[in-house]
Amino acid sequence: MDQDDPRTADLGFARVDVDRAARTGDPEVVYGAGKTPDQVVAILSALHEKHPERAVLATRLSDESLDVVRRALPDATIDLVARAVTLGPLPEPRGTVAVVAAGTSDAPVAAEAALTIRVHGAGVDRIDDVGVAGLHRLLAVRDRLATADCLVVVAGMEGALPSVVGGLTGVPLVAVPTSVGYGASFGGIAALLGMLNSCAPGVTVVNIDNGYGAGVFAARVARRAEVRP
Amino acid sequence: MDQDDPRTADLGFARVDVDRAARTGDPEVVYGAGKTPDQVVAILSALHEKHPERAVLATRLSDESLDVVRRALPDATIDLVARAVTLGPLPEPRGTVAVVAAGTSDAPVAAEAALTIRVHGAGVDRIDDVGVAGLHRLLAVRDRLATADCLVVVAGMEGALPSVVGGLTGVPLVAVPTSVGYGASFGGIAALLGMLNSCAPGVTVVNIDNGYGAGVFAARVARRAEVRP
Amino acid sequence: MDQDDPRTADLGFARVDVDRAARTGDPEVVYGAGKTPDQVVAILSALHEKHPERAVLATRLSDESLDVVRRALPDATIDLVARAVTLGPLPEPRGTVAVVAAGTSDAPVAAEAALTIRVHGAGVDRIDDVGVAGLHRLLAVRDRLATADCLVVVAGMEGALPSVVGGLTGVPLVAVPTSVGYGASFGGIAALLGMLNSCAPGVTVVNIDNGYGAGVFAARVARRAEVRP
Amino acid sequence: MDQDDPRTADLGFARVDVDRAARTGDPEVVYGAGKTPDQVVAILSALHEKHPERAVLATRLSDESLDVVRRALPDATIDLVARAVTLGPLPEPRGTVAVVAAGTSDAPVAAEAALTIRVHGAGVDRIDDVGVAGLHRLLAVRDRLATADCLVVVAGMEGALPSVVGGLTGVPLVAVPTSVGYGASFGGIAALLGMLNSCAPGVTVVNIDNGYGAGVFAARVARRAEVRP
Amino acid sequence: MDQDDPRTADLGFARVDVDRAARTGDPEVVYGAGKTPDQVVAILSALHEKHPERAVLATRLSDESLDVVRRALPDATIDLVARAVTLGPLPEPRGTVAVVAAGTSDAPVAAEAALTIRVHGAGVDRIDDVGVAGLHRLLAVRDRLATADCLVVVAGMEGALPSVVGGLTGVPLVAVPTSVGYGASFGGIAALLGMLNSCAPGVTVVNIDNGYGAGVFAARVARRAEVRP
Amino acid sequence: MDQDDPRTADLGFARVDVDRAARTGDPEVVYGAGKTPDQVVAILSALHEKHPERAVLATRLSDESLDVVRRALPDATIDLVARAVTLGPLPEPRGTVAVVAAGTSDAPVAAEAALTIRVHGAGVDRIDDVGVAGLHRLLAVRDRLATADCLVVVAGMEGALPSVVGGLTGVPLVAVPTSVGYGASFGGIAALLGMLNSCAPGVTVVNIDNGYGAGVFAARVARRAEVRP
Amino acid sequence: MDQDDPRTADLGFARVDVDRAARTGDPEVVYGAGKTPDQVVAILSALHEKHPERAVLATRLSDESLDVVRRALPDATIDLVARAVTLGPLPEPRGTVAVVAAGTSDAPVAAEAALTIRVHGAGVDRIDDVGVAGLHRLLAVRDRLATADCLVVVAGMEGALPSVVGGLTGVPLVAVPTSVGYGASFGGIAALLGMLNSCAPGVTVVNIDNGYGAGVFAARVARRAEVRP
Amino acid sequence: MDQDDPRTADLGFARVDVDRAARTGDPEVVYGAGKTPDQVVAILSALHEKHPERAVLATRLSDESLDVVRRALPDATIDLVARAVTLGPLPEPRGTVAVVAAGTSDAPVAAEAALTIRVHGAGVDRIDDVGVAGLHRLLAVRDRLATADCLVVVAGMEGALPSVVGGLTGVPLVAVPTSVGYGASFGGIAALLGMLNSCAPGVTVVNIDNGYGAGVFAARVARRAEVRP
Repeated sequence: MDQDDPRTADLGFARVDVDRAARTGDPEVVYGAGKTPDQVVAILSALHEKHPERAVLATRLSDESLDVVRRALPDATIDLVARAVTLGPLPEPRGTVAVVAAGTSDAPVAAEAALTIRVHGAGVDRIDDVGVAGLHRLLAVRDRLATADCLVVVAGMEGALPSVVGGLTGVPLVAVPTSVGYGASFGGIAALLGMLNSCAPGVTVVNIDNGYGAGVFAARVARRAEVRP
Repeated sequence: MDQDDPRTADLGFARVDVDRAARTGDPEVVYGAGKTPDQVVAILSALHEKHPERAVLATRLSDESLDVVRRALPDATIDLVARAVTLGPLPEPRGTVAVVAAGTSDAPVAAEAALTIRVHGAGVDRIDDVGVAGLHRLLAVRDRLATADCLVVVAGMEGALPSVVGGLTGVPLVAVPTSVGYGASFGGIAALLGMLNSCAPGVTVVNIDNGYGAGVFAARVARRAEVRP
Repeated sequence: MDQDDPRTADLGFARVDVDRAARTGDPEVVYGAGKTPDQVVAILSALHEKHPERAVLATRLSDESLDVVRRALPDATIDLVARAVTLGPLPEPRGTVAVVAAGTSDAPVAAEAALTIRVHGAGVDRIDDVGVAGLHRLLAVRDRLATADCLVVVAGMEGALPSVVGGLTGVPLVAVPTSVGYGASFGGIAALLGMLNSCAPGVTVVNIDNGYGAGVFAARVARRAEVRP
Repeated sequence: MDQDDPRTADLGFARVDVDRAARTGDPEVVYGAGKTPDQVVAILSALHEKHPERAVLATRLSDESLDVVRRALPDATIDLVARAVTLGPLPEPRGTVAVVAAGTSDAPVAAEAALTIRVHGAGVDRIDDVGVAGLHRLLAVRDRLATADCLVVVAGMEGALPSVVGGLTGVPLVAVPTSVGYGASFGGIAALLGMLNSCAPGVTVVNIDNGYGAGVFAARVARRAEVRP
Repeated sequence: MDQDDPRTADLGFARVDVDRAARTGDPEVVYGAGKTPDQVVAILSALHEKHPERAVLATRLSDESLDVVRRALPDATIDLVARAVTLGPLPEPRGTVAVVAAGTSDAPVAAEAALTIRVHGAGVDRIDDVGVAGLHRLLAVRDRLATADCLVVVAGMEGALPSVVGGLTGVPLVAVPTSVGYGASFGGIAALLGMLNSCAPGVTVVNIDNGYGAGVFAARVARRAEVRP
Repeated sequence: MDQDDPRTADLGFARVDVDRAARTGDPEVVYGAGKTPDQVVAILSALHEKHPERAVLATRLSDESLDVVRRALPDATIDLVARAVTLGPLPEPRGTVAVVAAGTSDAPVAAEAALTIRVHGAGVDRIDDVGVAGLHRLLAVRDRLATADCLVVVAGMEGALPSVVGGLTGVPLVAVPTSVGYGASFGGIAALLGMLNSCAPGVTVVNIDNGYGAGVFAARVARRAEVRP
Repeated sequence: MDQDDPRTADLGFARVDVDRAARTGDPEVVYGAGKTPDQVVAILSALHEKHPERAVLATRLSDESLDVVRRALPDATIDLVARAVTLGPLPEPRGTVAVVAAGTSDAPVAAEAALTIRVHGAGVDRIDDVGVAGLHRLLAVRDRLATADCLVVVAGMEGALPSVVGGLTGVPLVAVPTSVGYGASFGGIAALLGMLNSCAPGVTVVNIDNGYGAGVFAARVARRAEVRP
Repeated sequence: MDQDDPRTADLGFARVDVDRAARTGDPEVVYGAGKTPDQVVAILSALHEKHPERAVLATRLSDESLDVVRRALPDATIDLVARAVTLGPLPEPRGTVAVVAAGTSDAPVAAEAALTIRVHGAGVDRIDDVGVAGLHRLLAVRDRLATADCLVVVAGMEGALPSVVGGLTGVPLVAVPTSVGYGASFGGIAALLGMLNSCAPGVTVVNIDNGYGAGVFAARVARRAEVRP
């Protein structure tokens, strides 16, 4: 029986893996989808109590959960665009990730990625509204792309932005397809396929709308890269 | 019974619609896939005889058909890259279509489009190797794009080129996805979806590898546009 | 930093590309899906102020947005079928696009295409209820099809109408699949595939329900064709 | 144990259901795909011996099987286009099925349907090359369509022909999609979807290239209809 | 202009093809999905007025439309399971169609097929709850299957029922896949594929949940077969 | 480093997990696809040497591999239908699995399942040619189905056999879809979906053509069940 | 006519197969989806009355149905997580099935499987929260896995848990994909494909979220295995 | 005109982008698929001549191309497993990428990744045959995983390995699905979906069999990380 396993916290409705931080160097995170507001508050509190010196992150929160958290945990910081919450002090940023978004509809995913990166210990440079149908905007920020330690590129519809960005610089690039689009975009499949088939070498991809996963990955890369000359 | 219909030519194995030119203003075309070399030669000859003053086009020819046509019809012009043949004089070009291709692997489809455009009465400006991962090449030909009467943009893999080109100019643009790619490109589906979901307004699409269809359409547009001031 | 870029208008929640008109010759357009009514009004007003002499178009508006726009912008013209709005004077029509729809359920997409065409500077001839299962209606309008400068053909279900129309005339034809249908129509995929595989040469296709995209393209073609003899 | 079941014939490598004719009124049929030439000959002979007074049909035969059958069974009738063979006298035709094909590439499937219909006891009226992009050919045979007892309509690419034919007449109509096409036709899926979503009521569909299945069904309908006034 | 075409009735929001009956021998039908209750009432009334001596059918009616029709047209007959309505006297039945359903969830589709058959002039024999996992029920009705003039077999989930029924009898069989199921049934696709790939020869298929289409077809077959000895 | 791990045998081109038998109670198995004939012989010999007292199985062998094995390992037993080989004595059978196949084309998959079951320690009862379109054959073997300890049911096309068998008995049933079929059977996907959506409760499924996987599972079930009263 | 068939109970809106228990040894089960609360109560009562000595199971109940059952049948036992109800005494457990779930979101499916197993006569050992990204939890319960008579392994997202569990033990294993996930998980398709392609031999699969089907199967296996030494 | 663009080398049949190294810090690479052996040799030579001090890489070479390169360029190093070639000295390795492969069939993709990493300036630690069905092998190399600067994890079939590895360590992880598998693995789609839906956070994915893309990305990450304390 592992019910007394010190690596897990048993909250009755869930066993929380409080050991992952030790294994991976990452903070604890609560995936809010499918959880009641009270469950979100309970898990956030339990994790915060265990490690008050570092931030806990909760993502994919419903309107109701955001509201309950705001009232139950006044010290929490709410990010309405990202639909996410942090509790506890953010770490000092090591290295920088540029989070690049194609259109305004991609903002929630970009915001989730950006907040995840900060919680996981890296800094963020946000670059918005640089879709490929208006190249002059993208070319104007070429230097910011080249000096980042990692890139997270967020786009829906045809998902072409990572190919263009990937041709401009050799910085490691994580592409995030979003479910923005209609008709034969299939909830982000068109963008996902576009990114998987990018003609720019060295583009990697995460699941549709998965700003969190891209953020975890990019922060790990940026933290390691930070001390280079 | 329509067996004496003057609008069709009965070759035994096929009835050829020799009336389409009258209805649509386009030349006769032989779709070579699935036809024997002898059938291709027979149909080309029959159509050429009926209208020796204008070109007939045969597309999608096998190596064997190209070979048999070369020997049987010494007056035919062979295009090995397009895998196509013309018989009879090409018309005077009216208007210009720029045929833009992303990579060298897209050359056969671009060549089929270009030859089709010429046979259908418009002129061609070929622009090759301008993939989105190397923007400087594309930006260098911006003027040629803007002065064309219609654009045919050919790309495989993620199919991003039409979005970028469509953001640079307001010339009518027909996108052609190619089956170039591997893995999750699904024989051109990724490029097709990318083009259907283009963030640049006014992009239209034809079937995968359908250089012929794009060429017919673009020539019709260019011929009509030619006389503008 | 490009925050003072004269080519964009920064509204706080969005940077609007007011330079596209210069690049492409097209008017400004607001894609209303996912925007709040207040955002729609704000963008419409900002764009109209910048260029009061030409029309701005807003598409894909919710019931609520249509209502708010009506009250906030009394000078706006509301098209309830197209779920779209224009503000400012429509341009003089140059050339004519025939907008052909298969069934009454296709009316919203056809209306969006028609309004887009007018805003983009071409004239419109609407031809409705000419599905392929009742050929006599279609054959009765054959002349109107042949004298247009471009055709936009809208159909759901099996999407067969562009093939039949494309066999009747050589006018450039843009097909628009609609999401009308049920069962194995897959929200318009069956019609989309039918149009991509049309046996009539020279048919091009846009995304499902994309009346706007077809309209932009067709207006560009018609405007160029208008001055031919 | 059913090894002595009089309703089956055990040939060692297969047990043949010789009782189906009694249950369904149909002749015996050998599906040749995946069978060796010798197996085809053995089954044909066994079935013919059991009922020499009626025809046996073998379909989907390879070049090699067609060749071996020709030499081993000189009384067999070979249909090279349908890739099928009959042995024994064809029944008197009761009722008529019109087999309508869109293009020359659809001929093998139409031929398989036609031969199946004859073997299953109905007569056949073949109507070829009446694709929807050339309506005048189809309208010319309108009377032959209306006087048939059942229609089998064969088409590839977008599969639009059954919709048009179904709008011209109320005769029961079975549609057969063929794998003719390329790109996003997906080996006949586009045509299959087009037919399933036909806007003409009363269209039924069989599997891709399944001329045999359509033929069995249509013959059953025509045989029953034959004696109507 | 065809605005005075006697073959259509213009109701303002729709042109109704009142000539189809003459072309196909079938009654007029109103497809209710996407129409307002008032539109349904208006079309039913217009069609009924034109031909009070025969029945008009309206299908796919919403709760609200059923309610409005009941109050506005007291002479109409309402079928709550089929979600359909008839107005005017049903024709004398000629021939019989057996409508066979696998499970209770398939009842609405079977009811729509049955009512359609009656309106289109044939008689109906309903056979319910004969799924393949309980063969004894099906074997008990074998005689009723064999004496019908046509079969409509309705099933969801794996769609196996037509294969089993098709092996028991040679009566023409139309299979209707329903959207009953969950998980990897994909809203009826699993059943549709099962029916298209039926190992029983002579099975034809209509679109998912398309009881209406199957009914039109089956009635046409049964009416023709009725006078056989 | 685990290079001296006694649980693996390093053959240079592969490390073989010789410990799985201890973990799972199953024999060693060589998956022959993608291996050269010499590699197959080498692995078979190495495994046989280690445990000469029990059988080793090699599956999915090419013609060439079967030939090389026959000459190199004269003690091996070749199963040409299953394309598989055993080396070493088969275990005493404990419990019985009935392997049921719908058609003769399903024989190779059924044979692979049957041989796998024997090698994994259970007995086999083969029941062939009992497709659902000829129910009398299946009903004749009902007793053999009911007395087995586990059932493996193999079928292609619509994959309906497991539903029918599963309705006749409560014996645990593993369904194996085969790639037998054409057109919209998608290489076995139609059968796979049919089996996953079976209306008979308690049907489990393995991958397409995976006779081996079904055999391993069924033998495990039968061995455990054997000693029941 | 089978209306007096003692093997079915006619409730007006449904005929219930009360004979299945005799054929398969399993209890009666009511599939609640799509049934009204009153229908659920009526069927439960009818089945319970017929066999008060054994449990009846109702699954997939809506909130409303759960509520109505609670009030109408006070003797029923409600399982809110499984959304299921039992009426009548549970049988003595014979053999044990370990129900293994990857994450807390998989709990409803695991609960449905567990309750089904108990109703079908076997015992249950629940093992929760043992996802593959935290192997230590899974390794800690290795003994419980090895001593079970059958395993039901429930997982969403990538569905990797059955492969890992299947490598640890040779106990028969049924995998249940859940619809837990987002983006390209396609409502459980990713997990389903992962399980069908498991590299661990002897893994069988049921439909997405089909805890009931897995439970029926596993209980049958465990009951048979129970008496082994 | 860019024909004299110093950033491209014109070889007649292709313009090579020799400027990408300057933009991205990466070496030149020749994608061999679809190129003739002579073209491969010509491009390799041209690139090597331009920069003899650094390595050029050619991937996806046919047997014939490998053979011609071996004879034409005796200084080239051939990697038969990776089907790739290098010409010129490899750079000093900075940082280390662990390349982890599930099975022997994944070796070609792992070898392509490993060689790409070396050519792009990082070191490689190869870890093979550590599939999830034999966890002890994977757990034995846990330290090597944790000390790498980046991980490339290669797996086919269900693609579960990245989830398990990602749970053991926080090192940045790029997953490569391979086309190894059969049946419903769809040429690598099952593995691709499994990886996109990984329950381990921070897993990114490249296209199927794209060892090259993963290698480019991982080398970029490792080079940057190398100088960390």
